[in-house]
Amino acid sequence: MIKIKFLVVGNLKEEYLRKMSDEYLKRLSKFASINIIEFKELELPKDLNEINIQKHLEKEDEPIIKSIKNEDYLVLLDLHGKSVSSEAFADIISGAIKTLRGNLIIAIGGTLGISKALLNRANFRLKISDLTFTHQFCRVIALEQLYRAFKINNHEAYHH
Amino acid sequence: MIKIKFLVVGNLKEEYLRKMSDEYLKRLSKFASINIIEFKELELPKDLNEINIQKHLEKEDEPIIKSIKNEDYLVLLDLHGKSVSSEAFADIISGAIKTLRGNLIIAIGGTLGISKALLNRANFRLKISDLTFTHQFCRVIALEQLYRAFKINNHEAYHH
Repeated sequence: MIKIKFLVVGNLKEEYLRKMSDEYLKRLSKFASINIIEFKELELPKDLNEINIQKHLEKEDEPIIKSIKNEDYLVLLDLHGKSVSSEAFADIISGAIKTLRGNLIIAIGGTLGISKALLNRANFRLKISDLTFTHQFCRVIALEQLYRAFKINNHEAYHH
Repeated sequence: MIKIKFLVVGNLKEEYLRKMSDEYLKRLSKFASINIIEFKELELPKDLNEINIQKHLEKEDEPIIKSIKNEDYLVLLDLHGKSVSSEAFADIISGAIKTLRGNLIIAIGGTLGISKALLNRANFRLKISDLTFTHQFCRVIALEQLYRAFKINNHEAYHH
């Protein structure tokens, strides 16, 4: 069975997001073995200047980067990434799985975003929307889109 | 207090979506009086050809269009609409409120989308994402973005 790792910063604080996450993990279990690994969300710097933000991101993302192997395929959620349709995202997932030597990884940063090192490691940077969502909300959106991708790739119906 | 109507097709079937909707309605009650009006979701035609789809949409959206007055400002969620940042969406909401003579309305269609008549009536057509979401999920996203718009317009902090 396909193994997919979610590397995420912080935990889901709202019960409805945990419920939604559980629901999609259950549905996804038909297609893949999903492992969600939560990394520590660091306290925000008091002074949000560019240097402090970069330091914060480097420190927050360091354990994430360390857990990614050279042969892994990394899909990174990124505000400045590429905006694609669910069908195109399904193609990216199936393409990654076909040529995969390591793990398929989906990573989501914390409140302040993503370090340059993690950005540079990404194989595909996905922009969900021009609108801003909380990173916790992005996690359930990513789970839902991954489920949708498997449904599309398996030619199964799924409502709009 | 500002009055905002949500005109939506169908109800929220999943408990986690209802919980999320309730949470944002509670938060929004600080800024506006929100009224969600659910319209009947019609059974899908068996043969999904273009003529049947258009007929279905016209019938489904007819009661929605009837409930919109000439002086209302209509924000319509539309896959082919404009993709904007949360800050730009906040500007659209504050601009609409400033010049409003009727109600501010946010409308979301059903499974098959939106009729041409409703599309033509829209003052602003908002595309949430190139990705496909269920229309039920779009409702909670719209509530969250409306809340975010008020937070932005009131210069209040809100996490990413």
